[in-house]
Amino acid sequence: MADKDKMVKIDELRKLAVGILEKVDVPTEDAEITADNLIASDRRGIPSHGVARLKRYVDGLKDGMMVARPDIKVVKEGPSYALIDGGGGLGQVVGSKAMNMAIEKARDSGLAFVTARNSNHYGIAGYYSMMALKEGLLGISMTNSAPLVVPTFSKEIILGTNPLSVAAPAKSGPGVVIDMATSTVPRGKLEVYARLDKKLPLSWATDETGKATNDPKRVLDNLLERRGGGLLPLGGDTEELGGHKGYCLSLMVDILSGVLAGGDFGKHLYAGGKGKPSGCGHFFGCIDINIFRPVEDFKSDMDEYIETLKSSEKAEGAERIYIPGEKEFAFEDSYKDEVPLNEKVYSTLGELAGEYGLEFKL
Amino acid sequence: MADKDKMVKIDELRKLAVGILEKVDVPTEDAEITADNLIASDRRGIPSHGVARLKRYVDGLKDGMMVARPDIKVVKEGPSYALIDGGGGLGQVVGSKAMNMAIEKARDSGLAFVTARNSNHYGIAGYYSMMALKEGLLGISMTNSAPLVVPTFSKEIILGTNPLSVAAPAKSGPGVVIDMATSTVPRGKLEVYARLDKKLPLSWATDETGKATNDPKRVLDNLLERRGGGLLPLGGDTEELGGHKGYCLSLMVDILSGVLAGGDFGKHLYAGGKGKPSGCGHFFGCIDINIFRPVEDFKSDMDEYIETLKSSEKAEGAERIYIPGEKEFAFEDSYKDEVPLNEKVYSTLGELAGEYGLEFKL
Repeated sequence: MADKDKMVKIDELRKLAVGILEKVDVPTEDAEITADNLIASDRRGIPSHGVARLKRYVDGLKDGMMVARPDIKVVKEGPSYALIDGGGGLGQVVGSKAMNMAIEKARDSGLAFVTARNSNHYGIAGYYSMMALKEGLLGISMTNSAPLVVPTFSKEIILGTNPLSVAAPAKSGPGVVIDMATSTVPRGKLEVYARLDKKLPLSWATDETGKATNDPKRVLDNLLERRGGGLLPLGGDTEELGGHKGYCLSLMVDILSGVLAGGDFGKHLYAGGKGKPSGCGHFFGCIDINIFRPVEDFKSDMDEYIETLKSSEKAEGAERIYIPGEKEFAFEDSYKDEVPLNEKVYSTLGELAGEYGLEFKL
Repeated sequence: MADKDKMVKIDELRKLAVGILEKVDVPTEDAEITADNLIASDRRGIPSHGVARLKRYVDGLKDGMMVARPDIKVVKEGPSYALIDGGGGLGQVVGSKAMNMAIEKARDSGLAFVTARNSNHYGIAGYYSMMALKEGLLGISMTNSAPLVVPTFSKEIILGTNPLSVAAPAKSGPGVVIDMATSTVPRGKLEVYARLDKKLPLSWATDETGKATNDPKRVLDNLLERRGGGLLPLGGDTEELGGHKGYCLSLMVDILSGVLAGGDFGKHLYAGGKGKPSGCGHFFGCIDINIFRPVEDFKSDMDEYIETLKSSEKAEGAERIYIPGEKEFAFEDSYKDEVPLNEKVYSTLGELAGEYGLEFKL
């Protein structure tokens, strides 16, 4: 929780988020799904993908980038797969429908993969893999996103931060939830460093010449003006540092989420400008572990693996070894009734409430 | 090609590799699969996974770590999945069988995922994803491997370099082949730096205290003696550099290849010592692109994506932007009839030929 955060009641926040979305014509059920996704992110300590996004969604719904009552179509379907056209709907609505299909199909067929195109920003990738996790299944979730990342040796932003998530259940804890952008950091991290006037590590971003830079403001300005340079793939700017592997991962996510679904990819995403479809696509997978081995045996092995990792010998100066998702589950536990909101996000929500004549009791 | 390499005829190399494997009781067909896999790696410019491995395989077959005539069983099976027990066979034999099953099932069911346990080192991950690629399908391949990598903030080697590969077809070229270890570099890279007395970049490895080090010999010695420290996950030693993401990826590969298949994982791999099973497991996937969209449309989009990446504006000082797999395909083209062998590998093969009374005409 940062200095200028304010603790707000989750129940009230949920009511408000649903109310605001309803006011821009989103059906109640869809508004509830979207609010749940955003608040889940705040609760997991990832405010960049939380209700801070609500204003952008409202704008997108008003200007036509997003469709409040989309015609979501199952374009193709088989026992273990489906392709969904999201009709330009909210990514959370399209994503939840697609992941639910993957879960149902996996229950019947053992495993299933569902792609979705013509969707929008879907929040944290882990929300969907954890939908499977809650059912004791193995979940996979990926999405492409706005081009902000340069391929290795290029200074053009072609790739997205394209996150991927895999969630696997354990017996004595909530399991492992991998949820990571394939860039070294997201843009929001640069904004934080710019505000604090801090220098960037050199594997985060490049300047307009395509060279690694420690100047966050320069990168952010260049991104806005499309002057060249951008975020670096996981690893950094050289093959020596493994940056080409982050490039591979980002491209992999876009091939599975965008090209495979017949949606937009690479520079085509968000290319239409204001009011035009974003072109986002997603890839979801679900595996019923029992098709390979009894899920309880799998979970026991996961417990042992987690214990081995956590109790392994710490590097000098290190305090603790984490399991993927562990920090986020700890946040979730501590934010059961209340969640911190940045004061700017708080006041934006207040303005939205005022605009739509909704009670503001946060 | 390095200074001390020798060009050898691929036909003769293949004959010799098959002959040597036959002499340690590997059936001809399996010997041919294994030789094909190793030589494919040499031809793709990845000699670390080429015929340089043959001696280790022969030793493994002789001492009982690997089984020359394994009882490979399909333990579980459905229209879109299977679990294979490799019976301790050569990884190439188990892997090819598993990937062929995935391909056949994907032809019938649209997509299929096959896990394999009780296998061994399977060569380059890309060999299997490219089996699908050759059929115009999308291929996925992963394997766990010997513990050499430290989790973030730990100094214990628990994870493998656990590679993953995804291959996707294009129209006018061989397509995209992602094939990458999830550590920043493999151990072989440290051996090269040690020989050249070169300092390591700090995101490659840690010393016995768990701190990033530039001393390759120290890391290699520590690995041998298990004194602490090891290879770093992609990104490096800190969360600031994204090292926790490489840790996530390595763990993901092991969950899918090891835990899901009910095989060994983490520190259990290669834990039995000489003559004991390695415990390796793999994960293979195959998707018939037509279940989502006409494969020809997919390939056209891939062409456009590849062209966009390759023709994007280069960073200052960069000569060229590569597509994943492009360098390896260029090697393959230039090594059609002959392939370079390191002089040490060449003489080891000569010794093996002598030992088994085989003609040595390389």
